[in-house]
Amino acid sequence: MDHSTSLLRLIFLALGAALVLLVLHSTFRLPRGIDTSTTSLFDDAVAVGSCTRFAPWGCNRKKPKAAASHDTDVPRHPLDPLTVAEINRARELLRAHPPFSSSPSSLFVHSLELDEPDKPVVQSWKKGADPLPPRRAVAVVRFRGDAFVLAIDLAGGAVTPLPVPASGYPTMTMDEQVSLCFAPFSDPEFNATIRRRGVRMSDVACLPISPGWYGPAEENRRVIKSQCFSAEGTANFYMRPIEGLTVLIDMDTSEVIHISDRGTGIPIPSAANTDYRYIRHMEEGRHLKSTEEGQEAGFQKVRAPSMEPAPAGAGVELVDGHTVRWGGWEFHLKADARAGMVVSRAGVQDPATGARREVLYKGMASELFVPYMDPAEAWYFKTYMDAGEYGFGLQAMPLVPLNDCPRHARYIDGVFVAADGRPYVRENMICVFERYTGDVAWRHSESPITGMDIRESRPKVTLVARMVASVANYDYIMDWEFQMDGLIRIKVGLSGILMVKGTTYSHMNQARENEDMHGTLLSENVIGVIHDHYVTFRLDMDVDGAENSFVRVEMARQETAPGESPRKSYLKATRHVARTEKDAQVRLKLYEPAEFHVVNPTKKTRVGNPVGYKVVPAGTAASLLDPEDPPQKRGAFTNNQIWVTPYNKSEEWAGGLFVYQSRGEDTLATWSERDRPIENKDLVLWYTLGFHHIPCQEDFPIMPTVSSSFDLKPVNFFESNPILKQRPTKEDDLPICTATNA
Amino acid sequence: MDHSTSLLRLIFLALGAALVLLVLHSTFRLPRGIDTSTTSLFDDAVAVGSCTRFAPWGCNRKKPKAAASHDTDVPRHPLDPLTVAEINRARELLRAHPPFSSSPSSLFVHSLELDEPDKPVVQSWKKGADPLPPRRAVAVVRFRGDAFVLAIDLAGGAVTPLPVPASGYPTMTMDEQVSLCFAPFSDPEFNATIRRRGVRMSDVACLPISPGWYGPAEENRRVIKSQCFSAEGTANFYMRPIEGLTVLIDMDTSEVIHISDRGTGIPIPSAANTDYRYIRHMEEGRHLKSTEEGQEAGFQKVRAPSMEPAPAGAGVELVDGHTVRWGGWEFHLKADARAGMVVSRAGVQDPATGARREVLYKGMASELFVPYMDPAEAWYFKTYMDAGEYGFGLQAMPLVPLNDCPRHARYIDGVFVAADGRPYVRENMICVFERYTGDVAWRHSESPITGMDIRESRPKVTLVARMVASVANYDYIMDWEFQMDGLIRIKVGLSGILMVKGTTYSHMNQARENEDMHGTLLSENVIGVIHDHYVTFRLDMDVDGAENSFVRVEMARQETAPGESPRKSYLKATRHVARTEKDAQVRLKLYEPAEFHVVNPTKKTRVGNPVGYKVVPAGTAASLLDPEDPPQKRGAFTNNQIWVTPYNKSEEWAGGLFVYQSRGEDTLATWSERDRPIENKDLVLWYTLGFHHIPCQEDFPIMPTVSSSFDLKPVNFFESNPILKQRPTKEDDLPICTATNA
Repeated sequence: MDHSTSLLRLIFLALGAALVLLVLHSTFRLPRGIDTSTTSLFDDAVAVGSCTRFAPWGCNRKKPKAAASHDTDVPRHPLDPLTVAEINRARELLRAHPPFSSSPSSLFVHSLELDEPDKPVVQSWKKGADPLPPRRAVAVVRFRGDAFVLAIDLAGGAVTPLPVPASGYPTMTMDEQVSLCFAPFSDPEFNATIRRRGVRMSDVACLPISPGWYGPAEENRRVIKSQCFSAEGTANFYMRPIEGLTVLIDMDTSEVIHISDRGTGIPIPSAANTDYRYIRHMEEGRHLKSTEEGQEAGFQKVRAPSMEPAPAGAGVELVDGHTVRWGGWEFHLKADARAGMVVSRAGVQDPATGARREVLYKGMASELFVPYMDPAEAWYFKTYMDAGEYGFGLQAMPLVPLNDCPRHARYIDGVFVAADGRPYVRENMICVFERYTGDVAWRHSESPITGMDIRESRPKVTLVARMVASVANYDYIMDWEFQMDGLIRIKVGLSGILMVKGTTYSHMNQARENEDMHGTLLSENVIGVIHDHYVTFRLDMDVDGAENSFVRVEMARQETAPGESPRKSYLKATRHVARTEKDAQVRLKLYEPAEFHVVNPTKKTRVGNPVGYKVVPAGTAASLLDPEDPPQKRGAFTNNQIWVTPYNKSEEWAGGLFVYQSRGEDTLATWSERDRPIENKDLVLWYTLGFHHIPCQEDFPIMPTVSSSFDLKPVNFFESNPILKQRPTKEDDLPICTATNA
Repeated sequence: MDHSTSLLRLIFLALGAALVLLVLHSTFRLPRGIDTSTTSLFDDAVAVGSCTRFAPWGCNRKKPKAAASHDTDVPRHPLDPLTVAEINRARELLRAHPPFSSSPSSLFVHSLELDEPDKPVVQSWKKGADPLPPRRAVAVVRFRGDAFVLAIDLAGGAVTPLPVPASGYPTMTMDEQVSLCFAPFSDPEFNATIRRRGVRMSDVACLPISPGWYGPAEENRRVIKSQCFSAEGTANFYMRPIEGLTVLIDMDTSEVIHISDRGTGIPIPSAANTDYRYIRHMEEGRHLKSTEEGQEAGFQKVRAPSMEPAPAGAGVELVDGHTVRWGGWEFHLKADARAGMVVSRAGVQDPATGARREVLYKGMASELFVPYMDPAEAWYFKTYMDAGEYGFGLQAMPLVPLNDCPRHARYIDGVFVAADGRPYVRENMICVFERYTGDVAWRHSESPITGMDIRESRPKVTLVARMVASVANYDYIMDWEFQMDGLIRIKVGLSGILMVKGTTYSHMNQARENEDMHGTLLSENVIGVIHDHYVTFRLDMDVDGAENSFVRVEMARQETAPGESPRKSYLKATRHVARTEKDAQVRLKLYEPAEFHVVNPTKKTRVGNPVGYKVVPAGTAASLLDPEDPPQKRGAFTNNQIWVTPYNKSEEWAGGLFVYQSRGEDTLATWSERDRPIENKDLVLWYTLGFHHIPCQEDFPIMPTVSSSFDLKPVNFFESNPILKQRPTKEDDLPICTATNA
């Protein structure tokens, strides 16, 4: 090749590197007191310098609102996440441990988390009375191409190897996700392709796409696929795919294994109308400030939320940084690099006795499965498992005050670990706030029929814990909502940006009759590809204690006997206690309805009903992929909506500990096949919430939130309505508010 | 019979009569300027007098918050409900019309409503420019045992008979619902039964229960069943059934046809822990005032909602009393005696063009179906159709400020008609308020993967229109929620009090193994009987115009051809345009997913997609009763979740115009069987939202609200995300609030 191209190549390399640094800088904050001299991840000059080169991507970076300093943190609860100091201690122990000690710089940390003490230890721990149980960590690292799982005794210093899964690889490090996209920048064929497509190298933005696993082709090799976009003229490069270009890269050597270009002739969609940033609209609106002017410039007439917090703020207590107390509820809440947000030891006060009663030992999103529905070369492999491949928590960015969460929200940071083992802080990753929606907790009016003049109504007030994971284009809004009546609603909201496909079509009249376009034409040359989302939650239920049973209360038509009644039929409920795991594999059917109870068979109400909680599905979707299709084998944990397994500390991740390039040998489905007894045992309930998404034009260029949820609801858990004695709201309970911008 | 019993009987009769009067008084307000001399419904003396006799039912009657005077109302919109003056005018015309003129006092008005002008007339009407179209009323009356349906020209005075349905009877009048319960008080056998059960006559509260229709037994006779309870020691008499006692009454003669008593030996459940009124808890709590003290006395620790309105209040415009404008939406909102709440002419502003685009011509709850699941003599007939039998709007009571609706809510009254044809006002029956829940309208953050420092998020603000119908024991909270992105969420909340059954059991250990108890033992001697709720909505969709088509977008597994792709399968979407009604009968299946679009085939987006709205089901339930079971034949409109019919002004009520004792000859199911063409026509979409309810102890003595919903959502209706240019909220958009009761 000639001199100019090699020079060009050097520039591209520099750009790529600069981008990596900029990137990490823009969202990480280094704890005070940590030496940064050896890592350039946090080098301001580079970041700012490169930022100017990436002008279209916007440099309006605001300094994040100061959060609590973490360098002085100490754990206060057995389930508190590793502190900055503990992570540094673990890092030292790992680097001193053979064989890593021979070349610490070759050690890459893929995960480093608290190794939670055994349940009985945690359950018996009394705050104030007992010291913290010994602090232990569990690390997943790679060293010279091999993966290791290690238990680390932070006090004693012992580092103990644990078994390593037979197949699959650990969750990618952020460093890999960022840097490997740019490996192809050094490849002449790649550069030639980009040139052919008429894209300036400085406008190229690439995404690291997990390849799934489709057979022996890339066996024993850790690979990633990079696909690229043009960011020219928009921050929303996702709408400008360089269609059909896929670069296969070796994750360990950064070597480009193969470049596939099936997209020649497919134009890159225009940047017009794709940018969603307010600053950009303000520019278009010639910097109009007020709503009125803004509206003339095409702004929606939108006023500020008309409901805002009382000065007392919400009655949310955040104790020792991680224990939330509110409205009879108490639970432990923390950030997790893989699960995102973890709720532990959720218990509720029984208003009849004042006693605290346990409901849920641990609840979290265990895995996601997001298969796209296009078998084409550049699309078939897009079957993401966002928790195990990318780290659902690692992708959670700081929440936007006033917009992601109400003004009175409280925030919790995450403390995570970079590939070099150093800790970093993800600020304002979780918010907690009290919510009043204007809904009614319970009510009754007497009608003229009985003539009793009764008008009793109680407003519903709830508590929300929220985090948002931005896995590249998509944003997952994860809410845990706690109600005073004991109900827990777990809600997933989908927003963010679609993964779109370039097409030569600019109008539907160019498509053949009944042509399978695998999606919807959203704009000229842009197809929103059909896909599903599945979020599988692991719910370690402890209903009034660890020993629980799973009961299916089936409702079916019962025909009456001749002459028994003028009615021919009625709905009859029958209770079935699940004896083994297979009894508890549930596929929901509208015409075979049932309730799904987790009960404590040893605890009965006054009149003899077993105390319990039920999982209450709402709108959901089921995967229709062929069970033998490789993605569905890896995502087999979505084969049922409900599973119940006996508690097993090693069974936390529905897709297996190592899901990257996994083969589906170690999923919830394989565990459940063992058909272990589950009656009167410590149970784990698994629920999968699903969405089918056929995109529509309203999803362009950014999607209005779509959400769905399911509930954990008390069923004969309380003797009677636990909020019977809630006070009605009176005028003088309410604050007086005055405008600030009138 | 001896002298004392006949004396006793007289007293009971007096009590019954007094109760009727009290009852009506307690919830009706007579418009100013209406002569009350001829009606005793509003006689204060009687009301207060009897009130004292019914002490347990509470006399803490507060004067309703003054509403707008209605006696000067004039209609301002073609769809405005009949005014007080128009109702009086219609009454005069009816009473002067033969044969009614021969004996006006024998004329009973069962319904008197606006006869809405034809759609084209309403659609072409321009406010300000055009006069109102001629005002017409339609009345359903009974006279000497016959039903009449009459069209009334309010200006010209013409009264024109319309066809009368072959079977069934009109909606009961409130007067009948109230008075007929007490007919049996004059019956010696009834009195003897009550005595045997040990209930004081002054404690007896009875309910009027629609009998359904089970064959020729009571043919050609309008009957009702009365069942009674003991109100001794509680306002919640529903929890104290005199089990098994059913009195069959002729509605026209008030004659007791038959008394069935199958409950001897079944104790009346205790009053303990059944009362839910705050005043009662305050008494128990020795009049404790503050939350803290209250809590000691057993009150839940509950603070006032922590979010409250900005001083500007919500940005809700209520124009001419019935037209709501908010956030791009405009629609007409009114109370209806049968449907409860009616939304008309809902249109949304297209932010791209500023044009107002129609979505929904008329939407309302058309009918309900609430079958109980016990074939016993005293239960089999409980299969309520609350709209057509009781009047869903007639049962809607004044909303409770601050508790049913937020402080800044606006209220709309209902103007209804008593049996004698006189108007009365139901105050604060509908509320409208802007809501901010803390949810996110859309958002995206860039992750470190791309390194673009983007944190864009927009809060979701919505508008809610709400009414609550209290049909005897149950409370139905009906919400229509309008979002700025064009989505309409229709939500039904269930609260209030269960219909329970007395039992000899006080503990489950008294029940036989697998005994079918038809419900759950909620408390000693109280069974909460299993039942379903179905609410069928009539949605006259006009998506960008009247001519629409119904499209089923079916998603199914598509296997790939050998060698086509490493993927074996994917999800393929196929569009099916429904040609006739039967093509559009939908039973939802999780494993046969589809989207359901109402599109305008003549209107395409820029890239050629037909503009549309889709109906998006969420959690629901389907009736499992035998299709040949009389209740299911009458409730056949619940046989599918979705139906589509061509617009027909006469097809408004899914169970038929006369559903009382109807035989299922005139339901949505029979109309749809005609299989009329529905392609590119003015369409009506019907959606049924269902609930299975197996009661649990938490539902005792009053139910925490359970709700479900469905959405009408734009699908390629807008060219792109219509809220893309919504402004983010800034600190100075928000009010400053200070406590009032700190």
